[in-house]
Parts: sequence; structure tokens; C-alpha cells
Amino acid sequence: MTLNAKFLKIKKGFSNQNFMATLGAKIKESDPGKCTIILPFHSKLTQQHGLFHGGTIAAIADNAAGFAAYSLMMENYQPLTIEFKINFLSTANGEKLITEADILKAGKSIFHARSDVFCVSQTRKTLVASALVTVKATKAISEI
Amino acid sequence: MTLNAKFLKIKKGFSNQNFMATLGAKIKESDPGKCTIILPFHSKLTQQHGLFHGGTIAAIADNAAGFAAYSLMMENYQPLTIEFKINFLSTANGEKLITEADILKAGKSIFHARSDVFCVSQTRKTLVASALVTVKATKAISEI
Amino acid sequence: MTLNAKFLKIKKGFSNQNFMATLGAKIKESDPGKCTIILPFHSKLTQQHGLFHGGTIAAIADNAAGFAAYSLMMENYQPLTIEFKINFLSTANGEKLITEADILKAGKSIFHARSDVFCVSQTRKTLVASALVTVKATKAISEI
Amino acid sequence: MTLNAKFLKIKKGFSNQNFMATLGAKIKESDPGKCTIILPFHSKLTQQHGLFHGGTIAAIADNAAGFAAYSLMMENYQPLTIEFKINFLSTANGEKLITEADILKAGKSIFHARSDVFCVSQTRKTLVASALVTVKATKAISEI
Repeated sequence: MTLNAKFLKIKKGFSNQNFMATLGAKIKESDPGKCTIILPFHSKLTQQHGLFHGGTIAAIADNAAGFAAYSLMMENYQPLTIEFKINFLSTANGEKLITEADILKAGKSIFHARSDVFCVSQTRKTLVASALVTVKATKAISEI
Repeated sequence: MTLNAKFLKIKKGFSNQNFMATLGAKIKESDPGKCTIILPFHSKLTQQHGLFHGGTIAAIADNAAGFAAYSLMMENYQPLTIEFKINFLSTANGEKLITEADILKAGKSIFHARSDVFCVSQTRKTLVASALVTVKATKAISEI
Repeated sequence: MTLNAKFLKIKKGFSNQNFMATLGAKIKESDPGKCTIILPFHSKLTQQHGLFHGGTIAAIADNAAGFAAYSLMMENYQPLTIEFKINFLSTANGEKLITEADILKAGKSIFHARSDVFCVSQTRKTLVASALVTVKATKAISEI
Repeated sequence: MTLNAKFLKIKKGFSNQNFMATLGAKIKESDPGKCTIILPFHSKLTQQHGLFHGGTIAAIADNAAGFAAYSLMMENYQPLTIEFKINFLSTANGEKLITEADILKAGKSIFHARSDVFCVSQTRKTLVASALVTVKATKAISEI
């Protein structure tokens, strides 16, 4: 597959997830083994202090890892998150979140990824969370 | 504070989180140190196979832990998730999710919680995820 | 395989791990899908306050999960820990640690386990740590 | 405190942990907010295939994070690991392990750290594990 075809596959997978549209998240073209997801601030996404809810941060950190793994999988395989862990370093006060995922190790069926989530305001870009994510390549939904 | 006043405090905290309304999640009255959150299925919450997205499962698992901790905190303190980890055991195919959080240990400022997430269909209730969550009691937003 | 043959297989696997002998850990016979490991206190296992080092707690929590998974695997398969997470609830001040692992979900190749670690003194048994562990069944060392 | 005095404090803390001597681990001088621990291979540290046991990898990953946090703490404070999570990327087949910890965020009492563990053989240095660790600054053992 060409790089362009690869990104079309990823973009299609992303657009098949209604929850990403509910959040308002967008996926950016990235190198194989990487993935960037952007989430603009919206009042529907907040916790009690009007800032990004931790659940929104975790959702895009997990998803970016899944698509980073997907970019390295053979045809007919789909990513399934087995588990993830996320540390919240700072409150997320800004205009958008950017999560950047990297595959640390691509095994036969298991992919280990790191996702860092940044919050961007007019004046700064702050690392607000870091996640470790384990993704499995699955052949069919029956196997999931 | 009476138990009823405690639950009003928790319910108010929950309703201050716009993201919970965006998901359509509801909180149930529980004993101190516990919390139950229910999330009915909606097509806006899905991943690529039309099932609950992992991000929705993680969001309520984390939040239930936070409110279970909140129920044990002194006045003027608020819960802040420091980190959490979640294992996805099965795909979540059903009518609603129920997450049940329990405080394993309430320290001076650190609370350790376990959140189990079940998916309920007409015929069964399946454990679909289990999380460990670390919550900190914070006095004011400036401290967060 | 009979239950007895299963435990012999597990006991042999355990005795093949030199590090368990270095710690002084012992494995107890358990039902399939469960595992109990006991670690008596010894001054060689301590942190700066003379109590069990967190590394010793984590090592047996992880290992108990691996052997609980092993007890459910087909012949010729071996357990490999993909990742684990552990919360330390209390300092471990006592005569021995007991870790009890349970498989939450046994998939085709992925096993999700919970390990609770207790510290036992003359007067009480305290939950000092809780772990979530992901184990993979591997056919041969080449695959690991 | 001078940098040299800081490292003496850390070295003393490390040498007070009997378990590190049991493993045969050594600590290297590092910049504040960082820590490097080295663990030479020894047959007492092995799993069933004669390679470094995951428990030894986790122990030094956790400990390096604790000492990296310690290097940033005020006098009279000691590090306590609240929880950690570790992904095992590859088997650890080599002459020594090197774990390098970095503080991602130093809060008032909570420190978030990343620890990467490498295995070194004559021909290569492989990332074999990555951990996220949460450490708390504690004033006295009674508080732990």
C-alpha cells in the first residue's frame, strides 16, 4: 500500500467511530507508526472547572495509539486496545488538545505505544498527560 | 453531613461536568466509598463496529472512582484523578454500561479505587473492563 | 491433564525461575485460573525502613498472575507478561506477603488477571497492593 | 544543597535498601530530576529461560523513578511509590540492564516519572521495558 492509501485507510477507520465525531476530534496524516489526533475545546467536553474532562484526554490518547498501531498492521487486521494507563500531569486549560502517539515496539500481534497529550493555548504548549497503551491486531470482529 | 446531603453534594459535582451530560451518563446513590455510574447505549458513543467506544468505558470508570473518593473527603476538598489504568476484557455489546467503583484504601490525601465496568443486555451482565484509579483530594483549583 | 499433573507443571515452571528462589518465594496449589505465592520476610528484601521493598511485592504479584494464566493454557504454551500495573495501598510491615491472583478473562491468547497482595503479621492481614496484569500465551521462546 | 551533596543523599538512600544489594544493582550520578540504575546479569535474577526476570526489570524501573523524584524533593522528604505500570517490549537477553528515569512533572507532593529500561549486550542496546511511575513526597514514615 502507498503511504497515501495507508492514510486513507486510517482516516476511514477514524470516521467510522461515531464517538470521535461526538467529541469533535480530528486525525492528522502521520508517518507509519505514529498518529496525531487534535481535539478543539468545546464546552460539552468539560469537567467541573470548565476544563477538558480527563475522559476526553484519555479517549484521544488511547485512540491515537490504536491508529498508530493500525498504520503498521497487515491488511485485514484491525487494532483492538487491550489496556491502557494514563497519568494526568496538569489540568488541561487551553484551546485544543494534541495527542501524539508512537509505537515503541511492533510485535507479531501486540503493539506497545506511548501517547503524549499536550494542551495548547495562545502562549504555550503543555504536556498534560502521558499514556502507555497495548494494542492487539485482530483479524475479524469475531476474534475480538 | 447526612448521607442524603452527601449524595446531593456528589450529584451536584456530577451535574457540573458537562462531559457526563454529553455522554448521557447518570449517577446512582451509593454507600460512602462506593459509586455507580450508568451509561445507556447511544449511537453517538460507538467505535467502528457500532459498540461502546473504549473511551466511553474509560471515562465512566475513571469518574466513578473520583466520586467514590469524593464521598469520603472532608468538606472543601475535591477529587482529582492522578492516573488510571484500565483493562478491556471483552467488547461492550449491550444496552447500557454500569460501572461500580470501590475505594480500596482511603489515605490522608491519596485514594486508591477499583472500578469494574459491566455491559448489560437483555440476557446477561458481562464484566467488560476493570480499572485501578488513583485520586487525590485537592483543596482548591489553584492546587490542582 | 489431571489437576495434580497441572500443579506439577506449574510447580516445575516456578522452580525454573531462579529469581523466585533468590526472593525465597513459594507457590501454593490452587484451583485452575488462580495462583497463590507466599514470600516470608527476610532482611535481604527490604527498602530503607526495613520493610518489604515494593519491587518484591510487584515481582510476586506479576508472577502469581502469570502462573494463574499458565494453569489455563493448553500444553506447549507458556505465559509471558505483556505489562502490569500495581497500586501500593499501605507499607508492607509483617512476617510474610501472600499474593492471590485471579484470571478475570481468559481469551484465545490474552489473559487478564487481578493480583491482590496481603501482608500478614501476628495480628492482622492487610491488603497492601493490587495489580492488573496482562499475560500472553506463547508457543515457543522464539515467539516471545 | 550542592549537586554533590544531593548525590550523596541519594546514594545513601539507595544503599539503605537491602533489596538493591540483593539484586546487585548500582546507582549512577545523574542530573536532578533524572536517575540511572544499572543491574549486571546474574543467574540468581532469571526467569525460566535464563533471562532477566520481569520482576528485576520492574524493581529497578520503579526505584529509578523514586530516586529521580527524591533528587527534586526538599530536605526531610522521602519518596514513596504510589503506583507504577510497566510494559515489557522484548525479552531481556544481555549482560546488564540500564534503567533511565525522568521526572515528567514535579508537583507539590506528586511526581510523575517515566522509566525506560534497556538491555545491553556486546552488540546492541535494546529498549526492553517502559514504565510510568507516580511518586509521593512524604515527610515521615508515620505518614507513609
